[in-house]
Amino acid sequence: MTQRLVAGLEPPYYTAVFTSLRADDPEGYAETAARMQEIVRDVPGFLGYESARTPGGIGISVAYFRDAEGLDAWRRNAEHQAAQRHGREHWYESYSVHVGKVERSYSFDRR
Amino acid sequence: MTQRLVAGLEPPYYTAVFTSLRADDPEGYAETAARMQEIVRDVPGFLGYESARTPGGIGISVAYFRDAEGLDAWRRNAEHQAAQRHGREHWYESYSVHVGKVERSYSFDRR
Repeated sequence: MTQRLVAGLEPPYYTAVFTSLRADDPEGYAETAARMQEIVRDVPGFLGYESARTPGGIGISVAYFRDAEGLDAWRRNAEHQAAQRHGREHWYESYSVHVGKVERSYSFDRR
Repeated sequence: MTQRLVAGLEPPYYTAVFTSLRADDPEGYAETAARMQEIVRDVPGFLGYESARTPGGIGISVAYFRDAEGLDAWRRNAEHQAAQRHGREHWYESYSVHVGKVERSYSFDRR
């Protein structure tokens, strides 16, 4: 596997957990998701991003930021807000966002 | 879709985000995962659990607890610890755990 996890971050840091239910591969979704993953990297304090989706099931994404200001900047980003609006209108059956401060973390790597 | 998201929780609450890379469907994994999802419900303060995995890619699970004590109880659970040890030895290429306190949350539901 060539994928890497976001790991080894030093608390405190902040996470936005986004969980969602939607149809598989709705029109325009993949392009917008790729664009969001591109622009989030320019947000000050951005530390990483991960996403997983069980086919036909739930999707979970996590964005990691150094501080609450980075999270707020991402939340207020105009292009991000437009994508969220489009998502509510066209893609998502439901979603939830849980914004929190990480107080403890640890990692395991076989290598 | 009959699945439901964990939603509408009132902050503050706590989350443990578990991200992992492993082979698809390793031996014994599904049984252990089902057992863990069963016993976590008995932990005081348990609020919910969600899991997603992109085939051939990353897996992300989130457990929600009312307080830090619930999270600690789950971390110290003997059967859970044995499963984690077995996972390190047999299943996981790598994993990370991010334990945090949720300060803000919101949800969208089409219905």
